[in-house]
Amino acid sequence: MTSKRLGKRTVAFASPPSVISFSNIGGKMESRGPLADYFDELDQDSFFGEKTWEKGESAMQKRVLNRALQKAGMAPSDLDYIFAGDLLNQCIGSSFGLREFGVPFLGLYGACSTMGESLAMAAMAIDGGFATLAAAMTSSHFCTAERQYRMPVPYGNQRTPTAQWTATASGCCILGAQGDGPYITHATCGKIVDLGISDVNNMGAAMAPAAHDTLLAFFQDTNTSPSDFDLVVTGDLGALGHEILCDLMAQDGVKMGKNYKDCGLMLYDLKQQDMHAGGSGCGCSASVLNGYLLRGMREKRWKRILFAPTGALLSPTSSFQGESIPGISHAICISNTK
Amino acid sequence: MTSKRLGKRTVAFASPPSVISFSNIGGKMESRGPLADYFDELDQDSFFGEKTWEKGESAMQKRVLNRALQKAGMAPSDLDYIFAGDLLNQCIGSSFGLREFGVPFLGLYGACSTMGESLAMAAMAIDGGFATLAAAMTSSHFCTAERQYRMPVPYGNQRTPTAQWTATASGCCILGAQGDGPYITHATCGKIVDLGISDVNNMGAAMAPAAHDTLLAFFQDTNTSPSDFDLVVTGDLGALGHEILCDLMAQDGVKMGKNYKDCGLMLYDLKQQDMHAGGSGCGCSASVLNGYLLRGMREKRWKRILFAPTGALLSPTSSFQGESIPGISHAICISNTK
Repeated sequence: MTSKRLGKRTVAFASPPSVISFSNIGGKMESRGPLADYFDELDQDSFFGEKTWEKGESAMQKRVLNRALQKAGMAPSDLDYIFAGDLLNQCIGSSFGLREFGVPFLGLYGACSTMGESLAMAAMAIDGGFATLAAAMTSSHFCTAERQYRMPVPYGNQRTPTAQWTATASGCCILGAQGDGPYITHATCGKIVDLGISDVNNMGAAMAPAAHDTLLAFFQDTNTSPSDFDLVVTGDLGALGHEILCDLMAQDGVKMGKNYKDCGLMLYDLKQQDMHAGGSGCGCSASVLNGYLLRGMREKRWKRILFAPTGALLSPTSSFQGESIPGISHAICISNTK
Repeated sequence: MTSKRLGKRTVAFASPPSVISFSNIGGKMESRGPLADYFDELDQDSFFGEKTWEKGESAMQKRVLNRALQKAGMAPSDLDYIFAGDLLNQCIGSSFGLREFGVPFLGLYGACSTMGESLAMAAMAIDGGFATLAAAMTSSHFCTAERQYRMPVPYGNQRTPTAQWTATASGCCILGAQGDGPYITHATCGKIVDLGISDVNNMGAAMAPAAHDTLLAFFQDTNTSPSDFDLVVTGDLGALGHEILCDLMAQDGVKMGKNYKDCGLMLYDLKQQDMHAGGSGCGCSASVLNGYLLRGMREKRWKRILFAPTGALLSPTSSFQGESIPGISHAICISNTK
C-alpha cells in the first residue's frame, strides 16, 4: 500500500492533483513591494474593516477563500475539506475566518511552513480518493504577530538586523482531482530539526537546517538537483537563512544556484522598505505562491518549481523557558505537466 | 477518484488501517480515577521530571510515543509520519516532545478533537498509499492549560459548576497498513459549528452542537444509528454537553441510548474527585481511547465503536474580544472487523 512512496521520504502522487484556483490578499507594506501587481487585493487598512487586528486576520482568510471560490465559479459546498492554520494562539485566524463556510475543516499548525503542509495534506486527500476538491490556506498579520511573539506595535520595539518582517497577507489554493494544472506532483514532509539556535530574532538561522534536511531528502528521493527546477523557493528564510541554506547544501555537494529564491526576499524591497533580513510569516510564502508563482506557472514562465516553506515551531513560552528553536520545512513540487 | 466517499461527508477506507499499538500516560488525578488500571504509566509528579509544566507535557508525549513503539517492537524510523498537536500556544507540547524522533511531522490544531483529527489524517495517509505506519497522538496538562486559558494554578481560581477539568494525560496510537485490528473503517471530519455560546466555563454547551452535526452526518452517510454501535463515545462534552447532545439528536429523531458515553465522564469519578462537569483536554479522550477503549476492543468487549472527540476552537484573545466559541468534532469508526 505504499506504492506512492519514492525513496525514503517523498510521496509521488499517482494522479497529481491540479491547482484549480488561487487567490491572495495583502496589506499596506505588501502594496509597496515589488510583487504588488501580483495580488488580487491590497488593503491599506490594517484592520481589514474589523475592530481588532486578530479579527482583521480572520477577515483576510475569509476574503481570500471567497475570492478563490469565486474565480473558480464554485460555492463553499463544492469543497470537501479546508486545510488551514496560522500563527495565532489556537489558530484563531483560521477558525474564526472560516467558521461560516460550513466546510469540513482540518486545522494545521506548521508555523510558517503551513502553506506547504496544507498543500501536502490536501493533495494526499485528493490523490488518496478522499476528496475531489480541497482548499489549502494560511495567513499572517504583522500586528497580531508582533504583539503575540514580541511587543505590541505601539511600543515601537527596535528590530535587530537579522529580524524579519511578518507579512500581513493570506493565500489560498484550491486543489482538485481534475484540472489543467499546474499539478502537485510530489511532496516531502519535514522532520523537526533543531540545531540549538535560540535567538528569536534570527529565525532564518533556526529554520535553514530544516529546509536543508527536507530539500536534501527530496533531491535524493527524486534523483534531481536544483538545476532541474526553474525555481526552488523557500518560504521565509530571509537574507541570512538563504545564505546558510546555500552553505549547508554546498557541504553536501548540492549547488543551489541562481534559481534558488526565497519568498521573504521577493515580497519586499528590503532596503527601500527597511525590511532588515526580509519578510516572514505564514502569509509571506502563501501570498507569493498564490499570486506571483502560480500566475507565472499558468503563464508558462516556469515549467516546474519546488516550493519549500519553512516554519519555526517555537512559542514565547518555550523561549522564556530557555529552549532553542525547532524548525520544519515541507517541500512541494509543482509542475505544468503531470 | 472519490470512490472512498460515502454519502456527503464520510470516508470509508478501502483497506481499513489497523491499530498496531497504543499507549497512554496520566498524572495524579488520573491515577485516582476509575480508569487508573487502564493506563500504561501514571506519574505522581506533575512536572514529569522536568522543570516546567510545559516541558512536562512534552515529556508525556515523548514517553507515550516511546512506549507505543516499544510495545510494537518498532523504532522511530519505522514510522512514516507523526500526526500530532496539543492545546499549548504554537503546539509546543508536540513540537518539543517529538523533535528528537526524526520522523516527518505533521502538526495539527484541532483543540480537544485532535485525537480524532490525527486518527483521520493518519488513516488517510495509510489508506491513500502514502504511508505504511503512522502515529496519531496528542496531550494536555491541567497546569499548562489553566495558566494559558484561565489563571495560573497557584492563584487558586474558583471553578463554576459547568467547568471541566483538563486532563493531565497523553495518548498515542500507531496505525499500519497491515495488522490484526481493531481497524479504522470510517472517518467523518467536522465542520466548524458556532451557535453563539460565549461562556468559556461551559465548553460542553459550546461543543455539543459540533458533535451533533458530525454524528448526524456520520449516521446518515453510513445508514446507521447509535444502536448499531457497542459504544458511541464523545471526547469531553462532560455532564452538560452529554445531555445537550442527547437532546439535539433526539430533535432529529436519533436516540443516543445507553451506549452513548463521554470520555470526560469516564476518566474521573466526578463527585468523589470534585470534577464538576467532568474531564476535558486533548489528553482526556486520547488517554481513554488509547487505554480503556482500545484495550477493550482487543479483549473483544466491544466489536465496533464510534469515537467522536470534540474541540473548542477559541483562544483567550478571541474571548476577550467578545467572540463566541466555535466547536468542531471528528468521528472515527473503529471496528474489530474490516
